[in-house]
Amino acid sequence: MSVINIGLIGLGTVGKGVVKILHDNRENIQRKVGAELKISKILERPDYQPQPGQIGAELIISDADEFFNDPSIAIVVELIGGTGAAREYIMRAIRAKKHVITANKELIAKYGREILELAEANGVDFYFEASAGGGIPIIRPLKQCLAANNISKVMGIINGTTNYILTKMTNENREFNEVLHEAQEIGYAEADPTSDVEGYDAAYKLSILASIAFNARVSIDDIYFEGITKISPKDIEYARELGYTIKLLAIAKEVNGEIEARVHPTMIPANHPLASVNDAFNGIFVNGDAVDDVMFYGRGAGSLPTGSAVVGDIIDVARNIKFNSHCRIACTCFLEKPVKNMFDVESAYYLRLHVVDQPGVLAGIAGIFAKQNVSISSVIQKGKGTPDVELVFVTEVVKEADLQESIKQIIELPTVYKVSNVIRVENGF
Amino acid sequence: MSVINIGLIGLGTVGKGVVKILHDNRENIQRKVGAELKISKILERPDYQPQPGQIGAELIISDADEFFNDPSIAIVVELIGGTGAAREYIMRAIRAKKHVITANKELIAKYGREILELAEANGVDFYFEASAGGGIPIIRPLKQCLAANNISKVMGIINGTTNYILTKMTNENREFNEVLHEAQEIGYAEADPTSDVEGYDAAYKLSILASIAFNARVSIDDIYFEGITKISPKDIEYARELGYTIKLLAIAKEVNGEIEARVHPTMIPANHPLASVNDAFNGIFVNGDAVDDVMFYGRGAGSLPTGSAVVGDIIDVARNIKFNSHCRIACTCFLEKPVKNMFDVESAYYLRLHVVDQPGVLAGIAGIFAKQNVSISSVIQKGKGTPDVELVFVTEVVKEADLQESIKQIIELPTVYKVSNVIRVENGF
Repeated sequence: MSVINIGLIGLGTVGKGVVKILHDNRENIQRKVGAELKISKILERPDYQPQPGQIGAELIISDADEFFNDPSIAIVVELIGGTGAAREYIMRAIRAKKHVITANKELIAKYGREILELAEANGVDFYFEASAGGGIPIIRPLKQCLAANNISKVMGIINGTTNYILTKMTNENREFNEVLHEAQEIGYAEADPTSDVEGYDAAYKLSILASIAFNARVSIDDIYFEGITKISPKDIEYARELGYTIKLLAIAKEVNGEIEARVHPTMIPANHPLASVNDAFNGIFVNGDAVDDVMFYGRGAGSLPTGSAVVGDIIDVARNIKFNSHCRIACTCFLEKPVKNMFDVESAYYLRLHVVDQPGVLAGIAGIFAKQNVSISSVIQKGKGTPDVELVFVTEVVKEADLQESIKQIIELPTVYKVSNVIRVENGF
Repeated sequence: MSVINIGLIGLGTVGKGVVKILHDNRENIQRKVGAELKISKILERPDYQPQPGQIGAELIISDADEFFNDPSIAIVVELIGGTGAAREYIMRAIRAKKHVITANKELIAKYGREILELAEANGVDFYFEASAGGGIPIIRPLKQCLAANNISKVMGIINGTTNYILTKMTNENREFNEVLHEAQEIGYAEADPTSDVEGYDAAYKLSILASIAFNARVSIDDIYFEGITKISPKDIEYARELGYTIKLLAIAKEVNGEIEARVHPTMIPANHPLASVNDAFNGIFVNGDAVDDVMFYGRGAGSLPTGSAVVGDIIDVARNIKFNSHCRIACTCFLEKPVKNMFDVESAYYLRLHVVDQPGVLAGIAGIFAKQNVSISSVIQKGKGTPDVELVFVTEVVKEADLQESIKQIIELPTVYKVSNVIRVENGF
């Protein structure tokens, strides 16, 4: 049986998962591919300290030249993340005519076009199933199973850390900071949680998913994003009263040839399938003109789930090697589509205002909304007779620009202490 | 641009969907494939009457020789169903070195091995993504994205008709027969509903999914199946009280190298993701050793959703034609695994008994259960003081054989009028 040699860059969380899967399941994988898949070298920093008995430790080298000049390595798997060394290594591997697999969402979101073009020019495969949705099959289904469809919407929970935090806040009625610290202690959130809680991570992934779904590149710079740091237990409580659940949603739609792409906390109906995607799980909804709604659910991160997607890519590349069918599914961004400015996006909104407890407050606010063409779907007053009187509005679907202009004017009202939060609402699924 | 000619057999519901998708989305599909996909002939019965203005009507012929002897047809799509002409046509197409795509679950469940072997011997592709889960990407994800995993469980709602009926019965507290007739009127159930409501359709699909998941053929003869005709509004009501929802589940597990595969009404926890798969939607759970739980959700039937999967297969075969990479992913049933007899399967059970209203009834029944090693998890008495006194039991996980033996003895008790229903319960997800 022929052997296909794999060079692995990075033996961190996901790297260890890949090594373990290729080790534990090697027999079945061999029979599926008809070749032995063997990790032959692992590139790590000189100071990398393997644990005692760690599988693959004997394969670690730190000399990049030795790694990339090894002609026996057919597939390079990049798992160090970031856009510095990772980018350089990937370009180098492709130029050396090696097929490349990565889980690096930031790199693809920022340099995907350049890498895909280089791969195509060099006749090698560049696969990245693990870069969005972790272990969930989503990129290949979009490029193959759903290829017959014109996709109009991709919408999902694609960051496990924030979904874990929101689930805890919702189920245990707790504050964001408290839950974040707990998540950091158990390793569900990083020491620097910015990329997750501020929405960067989800925006990178949405850039990848939207580009594939709409056959047109959606740049990370075109994606509006907000994190979950401003969500309070009060918002969650009011959402529940109104029949909603709050999730950090990544939403991309194509409407009349224009794309909108955004990441932000969103109230969705409590009976929507995405509302029951809890803890660190991810869920991705896709709507296509033929298939209608489909949803993909699973673990969006973690050593073995992400490793599952990476090894799935390795198996596919190995099949291409066997059949000499590289670039069988090339970059599908063959169209160009304008991306809407966030101010032109339409949505329903939830607003929570801290107001003075006196007659006429509502009239003043309602007057401003009316002038800006913002129709109100419902209003609830909370805390009557306490110092924390709040008005909670849910609007109809209105233009972001009109909503923002209303808020500007409402803040100026002497009867309004504060606009405590504004959260978008998605009703139409 | 090169042209790939497709011959379609059957212009029924799904056939029309395929024609429509290839017509409406031809531009994007062409760019994805790099070739024009053209239906050049449609084989139908001589008495087929196209509707006025029907797309593709001019391509209809009824002479099978003319169809199969056309050397310009590279891909044959079989959409007539059944195991008579469909089987003959598929074998004939393969022998003529044409690639074949079908949505025919019964045919694959019964003759899959023979067809796959013939296809491999002739070097042509045989694809059937639409045969299980309709528009939901599931077969290709199992064979590619999840190929790194040893799969331990595939479990899902894979018959839309019965799920629609159970959803209506649950939400509207109605009888099976009444809802079935309504479903027949709106076209959600066939005039002869046997295949759906008695579980055949789900069993065929489970045979396909389990064979792929476990890399070992699971014959349709090895699958135990029951339909939903015995479910009554009372069972649904008690299920709700106990925190469960009743679904027709197809369940396949591999435990210690042995496979179990069965289709039957099942009580699942009301907060399980499959419990909220409603109406005609399907949902399929998969557990793999690397990826953990993943779920796929979408429309399991219908002209366009099923057409989406068929055209996805056409696109994939077209890519193989372009790259000459046929049989790139061949049959993966390279293992042989024993399938358990249903009597050896373990499950929890719900039992509803119509009993005499007098002291000592419970003691008699409990005594029989104890003798058979059947532990009881909960008992509820219903209808005290009416002629319809009922005892509702939920057992712990026990052996099917022990449960069946208990029932035999319980029926003999003078205090028991009737065992009204027995439904399996799945708690462990």
